[in-house]
Parts: sequence; structure tokens; C-alpha cells
Amino acid sequence: MNACVSPPPSAALGQHSLFDLWECDPERISNRDALRDALLGVIREHRGTIVEQVFHQFSPHGVTGVIVLAESHLAIHTWPEHGFAALDLFTCSATLDHAAIERSLGEALGARRIERRSEARGLPQKGLANEGAPSQPPPKAIPAPGA
Amino acid sequence: MNACVSPPPSAALGQHSLFDLWECDPERISNRDALRDALLGVIREHRGTIVEQVFHQFSPHGVTGVIVLAESHLAIHTWPEHGFAALDLFTCSATLDHAAIERSLGEALGARRIERRSEARGLPQKGLANEGAPSQPPPKAIPAPGA
Repeated sequence: MNACVSPPPSAALGQHSLFDLWECDPERISNRDALRDALLGVIREHRGTIVEQVFHQFSPHGVTGVIVLAESHLAIHTWPEHGFAALDLFTCSATLDHAAIERSLGEALGARRIERRSEARGLPQKGLANEGAPSQPPPKAIPAPGA
Repeated sequence: MNACVSPPPSAALGQHSLFDLWECDPERISNRDALRDALLGVIREHRGTIVEQVFHQFSPHGVTGVIVLAESHLAIHTWPEHGFAALDLFTCSATLDHAAIERSLGEALGARRIERRSEARGLPQKGLANEGAPSQPPPKAIPAPGA
């Protein structure tokens, strides 16, 4: 199933929220399996559709995890030594409420402070406005022979 | 190996770039295996350390992919019907050059326009400034008995 097909053409194709969670409970962001269970629990609570997941324990500490959703993805990187976790949630449908998921993530990881930034991804008018750095230079005008 | 351990305490813990690629070659963003090979090639070209990867083909079209790196992650979601791909690159070390990787991704997917936004993640001074929405309300003052 792909929840991302046929969005309204005038709307953004996706919504991307970056959550910086501070003063997390270090124990909750240290262990791969416990962190995976916590995040899968949050996604299930909000009725996200889990497609695949990858969680990796780093040495000496820190976990990276990604849950691929039919609605897009949730990723996390943790620094237990700083009580810090950086998450990002990308969705292409309005069925997942980013603010509600943010609250659940904060509770699940015992965070005392959260910074959130949210970005519209694939806004047609932004794409057409040609913002940002082009990957390739615009085609050069080639003078007509003899001009 | 974890490239994310022991960052300078005064610096951001990570850098997160969001790349919106427009007017991509639809064939290059339609097929899971071809897209996976292209992105793994870009990471190898830039000497990123690949830990795990997950790529999922959606029906009728679209691919979601995540490459977990020792340096953090690269994720992609594609809309071939719009010639659009949304990528994000998160790194916790300065060994990967986001601007150079952006150019390689644009070339690999045949993009004619790219919008990039880049965010510092886990800036200590931002964390201490208590920006954004707290996950939990501040503790309420409890009146003293008899007050």
C-alpha cells in the first residue's frame, strides 16, 4: 500500500517535522530494542502503517533507527551521553497528526524539552519558483550559425 | 563504528539537509533496485560508511528508501508521476560534504532543479534556550496546605 499516491495537485506532497528532544531519560535512548519498541508503540498508537524498520546499536553508545511507513518515515538518532535525541517524521498524508505524535514521542523518551521545526516538502509553487541552488546550470543559449 | 560519538560540546550535534529534487528523470526514481544502486553509489563516491539499507517499492508507483550510515542517514521518497523526489541527509560528522552530495544526487536522478534547506540539529544553546513547544507542561505550583 502506498499512502502517497495522488495528492491534491495544489498542496505540498509531504510534511516533514524535525523534533529535537532534550533532557531525555538516558536509559530510554540507550538500548536499541527498548527504543525500537517505544517508537513502534508510538506509531501504532497513532495508527501509522509500518512497512519495515531498521534499528542499529552503536558502540560505545547511541542508536540510529528508521521506521519506514506507508505514509513515509520516522527516523531517530540518539546521544545518551547528552540526553539528546534527534527525530524526523516525514508523512505524505494528513492521517498522521505531527503535533500529537510529537507529544507521544516526548512522553515515550522522557524528554523535558522539545524543539520542533516543520517543513512543507514538494510544494508545487515553490518548485516552480525555482528556489534554491540548481543542481545544473541553465542551458546556455547557442547562437545560430552565422549569427 | 559510530561516527557520532564525542562531538565538540559547543557545536551542533548534527546537520540535517532537506533536498527537494524537481524534474527528475521519472525512470530513475521509479524502480527500487535502480534507485538503491544510484544512492548507494553516491554514498560510496563520498566515502560514507553504509551500515544498513531498506528500499521499498510502492504500488502503483513510488519508492521509499533509507540508508543508515555510521554518520547518520540518507532517506528518499519519490513521486515519479510528478518527477519529484524528497531526500534528507542527516550527518553528525563533518566528513560528508552536504553541498557536494546534493550535486551528486541531482546528477544521479537527472534533476533539473533542487531546493535545499539545512538545519543544525542539537545546538546546545538552542536546547538551553528552551525554544519550541515543550512536550510536557511545566510543573504546577502546589499551594502550601492552609495557604
